[in-house]
Amino acid sequence: MENNEEKVLKNIKLTIAYDGTKYHGWQSQINALAIQDIMENAMKELTGEDCSLTGSSRTDVGVHALGQSANFFTESRIPAEKFAYAINQLLPRDIIVTHSEEVAPDFHARYSCKGKRYRYLIYNERFPSAILQNRACHVSKQLDFDSMQLCTGFLVGKHDFSSFKSTGSSVRSDERTIYEATLVQYGKNYVPFSNIIAFDISGDGFLYNMVRIIAGTLIDVGLGKIKAEEMPSIIQACDRKKAGKTAPSHGLYLVEVFY
Amino acid sequence: MENNEEKVLKNIKLTIAYDGTKYHGWQSQINALAIQDIMENAMKELTGEDCSLTGSSRTDVGVHALGQSANFFTESRIPAEKFAYAINQLLPRDIIVTHSEEVAPDFHARYSCKGKRYRYLIYNERFPSAILQNRACHVSKQLDFDSMQLCTGFLVGKHDFSSFKSTGSSVRSDERTIYEATLVQYGKNYVPFSNIIAFDISGDGFLYNMVRIIAGTLIDVGLGKIKAEEMPSIIQACDRKKAGKTAPSHGLYLVEVFY
Repeated sequence: MENNEEKVLKNIKLTIAYDGTKYHGWQSQINALAIQDIMENAMKELTGEDCSLTGSSRTDVGVHALGQSANFFTESRIPAEKFAYAINQLLPRDIIVTHSEEVAPDFHARYSCKGKRYRYLIYNERFPSAILQNRACHVSKQLDFDSMQLCTGFLVGKHDFSSFKSTGSSVRSDERTIYEATLVQYGKNYVPFSNIIAFDISGDGFLYNMVRIIAGTLIDVGLGKIKAEEMPSIIQACDRKKAGKTAPSHGLYLVEVFY
Repeated sequence: MENNEEKVLKNIKLTIAYDGTKYHGWQSQINALAIQDIMENAMKELTGEDCSLTGSSRTDVGVHALGQSANFFTESRIPAEKFAYAINQLLPRDIIVTHSEEVAPDFHARYSCKGKRYRYLIYNERFPSAILQNRACHVSKQLDFDSMQLCTGFLVGKHDFSSFKSTGSSVRSDERTIYEATLVQYGKNYVPFSNIIAFDISGDGFLYNMVRIIAGTLIDVGLGKIKAEEMPSIIQACDRKKAGKTAPSHGLYLVEVFY
């Protein structure tokens, strides 16, 4: 009976968390180990199929994810919701599938994506944190939180964000809509995760390095190198040279992908 | 002039934070790399002296510290408060000196110690955390926070804690005074450090593995394997077999040493 059963192609969506420290980003490439490679190998081991995983978002070297999304097609009889547990048995401890479900055949992790939310973590203490290395960007001089917070307000809405785009990207339009941009401060109490400023940003899409360049600009505002009130003119300039430095990748987390 | 200046022996106290993952605990030992070794090598490079560092507390393999204390004697002319910065230039990124100061000649990091505070972190989610690996103990089944909290209350005060002592320790008395034992829950918001239960305990001293055995017992209470109301009788039994398992070392942080 089993061999005669019709094979059914299912579209499975995975939610994935990873510590990006050891990998060359999400997407497969020549001569470097990407998270996608590790996952596709694990899926082949699990299903016996050559699996091709479509991610919602390339993340750069060192960038972390809590809710990266990816989908793949399979004839495997493993129930969709069991994939998370099954794949985790074959993955290293810094890549964890947190959810799996069957989705419609036309679901595409990248093209169906309606938006994303990122968090950028800044550890603001005199000396770096032994515990948070590779997990937050260290800034030793005291940051002016209020100025930084004032600055985030200017980001919300539809803007041409080309001042916050690294060269090398080739998108048609640099207009993006930011839904929310907020700053939260975590004080002394929650050791070892204390003295952190978290920058949260969600929008319909992000240009190449956009969150990291905005974070770098916010840090410059916190250090007094840029005034918060200058933010609107930095946005309007559409000139990468007006914004701050690109903040390091290890402070960045892809938190959620919206569909 | 310089060569004729009298050499002055100073006693310097350091406060040290480390990620214990890669090291065989604090204390030097044969055939294993301890944090003390790394630090003494760095100090020799800095001062040119053979330096002997006295730590307040041996921490086990994998245990972390935010406020380990140690002292050493030196004739170096480096100002006491500058040592932290200077040594950090020679240390790996998972060992950070957060403070340095000159102390009285009779100060001894271990014998002068009046008490310690530890924190134990439990990550309570279905799947392990990619970001918190080696930084919190993962428990996949939902823990009953209220029962665990009820349980901590019984720990406070002066008790014989031999039910919570690993064999192999040779101390004269198993009586210790616990000043405070509390439980805090961190919810969904503070990603990637969310869904954590933090157990804080301070006291005049701790038996070998005492915090980890108490944490393991609390986890058993949270899982319903032990009732919170049984805690007084577990303490009174003075029998290691009555308490829960020793919780893994990577959830434990030495937060502060009191003098």
